[in-house]
Amino acid sequence: MSLRIIATGGTFDKHYDPLAGALVFGESVVPAAVKRARLTEACAIEPLMAIDSLDMQDVHREQIRAACQRAPESRIVIVHGTDTMCETAAVIAAAQLPKTIVLTGAMVPYELAGSDAMFNLGAAITAARVSLPGVWIAMHAQIFPWHAVRKNRAAGVFEWVDVSRPENAG
Amino acid sequence: MSLRIIATGGTFDKHYDPLAGALVFGESVVPAAVKRARLTEACAIEPLMAIDSLDMQDVHREQIRAACQRAPESRIVIVHGTDTMCETAAVIAAAQLPKTIVLTGAMVPYELAGSDAMFNLGAAITAARVSLPGVWIAMHAQIFPWHAVRKNRAAGVFEWVDVSRPENAG
Amino acid sequence: MSLRIIATGGTFDKHYDPLAGALVFGESVVPAAVKRARLTEACAIEPLMAIDSLDMQDVHREQIRAACQRAPESRIVIVHGTDTMCETAAVIAAAQLPKTIVLTGAMVPYELAGSDAMFNLGAAITAARVSLPGVWIAMHAQIFPWHAVRKNRAAGVFEWVDVSRPENAG
Amino acid sequence: MSLRIIATGGTFDKHYDPLAGALVFGESVVPAAVKRARLTEACAIEPLMAIDSLDMQDVHREQIRAACQRAPESRIVIVHGTDTMCETAAVIAAAQLPKTIVLTGAMVPYELAGSDAMFNLGAAITAARVSLPGVWIAMHAQIFPWHAVRKNRAAGVFEWVDVSRPENAG
Repeated sequence: MSLRIIATGGTFDKHYDPLAGALVFGESVVPAAVKRARLTEACAIEPLMAIDSLDMQDVHREQIRAACQRAPESRIVIVHGTDTMCETAAVIAAAQLPKTIVLTGAMVPYELAGSDAMFNLGAAITAARVSLPGVWIAMHAQIFPWHAVRKNRAAGVFEWVDVSRPENAG
Repeated sequence: MSLRIIATGGTFDKHYDPLAGALVFGESVVPAAVKRARLTEACAIEPLMAIDSLDMQDVHREQIRAACQRAPESRIVIVHGTDTMCETAAVIAAAQLPKTIVLTGAMVPYELAGSDAMFNLGAAITAARVSLPGVWIAMHAQIFPWHAVRKNRAAGVFEWVDVSRPENAG
Repeated sequence: MSLRIIATGGTFDKHYDPLAGALVFGESVVPAAVKRARLTEACAIEPLMAIDSLDMQDVHREQIRAACQRAPESRIVIVHGTDTMCETAAVIAAAQLPKTIVLTGAMVPYELAGSDAMFNLGAAITAARVSLPGVWIAMHAQIFPWHAVRKNRAAGVFEWVDVSRPENAG
Repeated sequence: MSLRIIATGGTFDKHYDPLAGALVFGESVVPAAVKRARLTEACAIEPLMAIDSLDMQDVHREQIRAACQRAPESRIVIVHGTDTMCETAAVIAAAQLPKTIVLTGAMVPYELAGSDAMFNLGAAITAARVSLPGVWIAMHAQIFPWHAVRKNRAAGVFEWVDVSRPENAG
C-alpha cells in the first residue's frame, strides 16, 4: 500500500508551552506517533500546516485539498482538528479525487496521559487501507462517510446524521 | 454494532512488579484502554485469562474458542500475546463460527511510554467493524487473514505468508 | 516526620477538558502523585482550592495561611501556581509560624508527557524534611528562602534576588 | 553549585525490548530526565555503566568509587539499582572522599507510567545540594546516612537500621 499522512494541526498535535501556560502548536507529533505505531510499510508524512480547526479559513481547506490532489499516494490520512473536520471533508469531497481519504483527530492531545490520539491514528490508517475511494471520517473506531456525520460539540462526539431526512440532505 | 473484547494477556496487558523487578500480569488494562478510546457504542469487555502467549496450551486456546462461541456479539476483538497469536487464530478458525473475530496485541506493554497498544486496539476494533466473518489478525494497521500471516520473531513483525507456495498451504 | 501537602491548584494540577479544548481544574492529582512517590511515612493531603495563581486574591492567600496555621503537622508542602508563588509565600511568612513550609509547583502539568511535577514534588518534600522553620520555595531542585527569589516569567524560571541591594529589601 | 550525576543502570534506567519481551539496558534515560527537570544550573552527566545492581561485582563498585574520586564536582548523585545500593554506598564511604555523594534509584523504570524515577531524582539532587559531605541514600524523599539504611526486599522499601544495636554496628 502507498500511504500518506498529512498533518494540519488540531488537538492531536498540540503542545504545552510552559511560558504561555497554554496549549500551542510546535513541531508535529505525527512522525513520533507513526514511529511508535511500528508500521511495516512505508508511509510518507507531510506536515502541511499547524492550526486549530476553528481558525481554518477557505484558503487552508483549499491547501489541504491541493495536497490530496498532488499526492502520489492513493490512500491518505489527514490529522485535523475535530471542530471543523466535517467542513474540510466536504471541501475535499467536492474535488472528487479518485483516492481514499480519511480524516481523523483527537479529543485529547497526543502528549497528554489518556490521549485518544494513537487509537484514532490506528483506526484511521486501517480505514484508509480498506475503504473505497471517497472521503471518510474515522473517529471512535467508526468509519463515517463525510456527508453522514457531524460533531456534537456539547457531547464531544461524532454522530451519524440521518441523511434521509430533508434537512440533512447536502 | 455489537462488539466484545476478550482479554487473554500478552505483552499488551503486562504490568511492572516493583518487588519482582519484572513484567507480570495483574488486573487487565483493557477496560482503561477502552475508556480512553472514547467509544460511542457499547462494548462488552471480558477478561478471560492473563497469560503470556508462549505459555498457552491447547486448553487455553479451547477456552478462547469457547468464549467466542458463547458470546452474543457477532464482532469480537481478542487481545492476545503476539508470539502464538497465529496458532490461536487457527484454533478459532477451525470452529467456523459465523462471526468476525480479530486478534491483536502489542509489541510494547500498554503501560510503557511508546507503547503501540492503543494504536493496535484502534486498528483492531476498526477491522472488526468492517471485515467479513472470519478470523483476522490486525497488527501494523494491516488486516491479515489468519492463514496468510506469521510472526517473524527475529524482526518483531507480522508478515504475509505466500499461501500459494506448497510449503505454506494449510 | 509529620507532613501535610496542601493543594491549591496551579499548572501542576491542571487537567485537559476535551469539550472546552483547554486546561482546567478538576479533582486534584496530588493524591495520585503521592501514591506514585511510594512514600513510607504517613502524609496528610488537603485539597484546599483549585485555582490558577494569577487568579489568586488576598482572600485565597489568607485561606492558605490559615490552613498552614491550623495544620497539626510542623512540616508542610504547598502545591501552588508558579506565577504568584512568591506573593503567597510572603503572606504566609508574615504569620511567622513555627513550621517549615515549602511551596512548589510545575511548569508543565502533571498529566503531560515531560512534566516536571513529580521531580518538583520529590524536591519539595525533601526540602520540607531538612529545612529549618520558615517559608521556602523549592523549584529546579533549589531551596530558595521566600524573600530571596522571584519568578522570571519571560524565561520561565525562578532566580535569586540579590537581597543586599536596596531595591530588593523587603 | 557544581553537580555531577553518574548513571550506573538499575531499574531507573531499564528499557523494554520488544524482541526479547523483557526489560534491558540501552542508552541511559538520565539525560532526558535531567532535561525534563528544568534545572537552572549546569550539571554534568556521566553514564558510567548500565547494569542491574544484582549483577554488580567488586570491580564495578570500584569503578563507581573511582568516578566519584576523579569528578571535579563536590556534589554527586549516583543513579543505581536499589537491590545493592547500600553495598555500593559502603564501598564509596570507605574512600572517605570530601564530597557529598547521594545514591538514588527507582522501584519502577523511568519509562513506565507510574514511575517514581523523577520524584527520586528531584529528592536526590535536593539532598545533594543541602547535605554535608558523606555518603547518603535518598529514597522515599528521605535522606538516609549510608550506614543506617537497608533495603527490605520483601516490602520493596528502604528502612532505617537501628545502628545502636550491636548486630548493626559497622
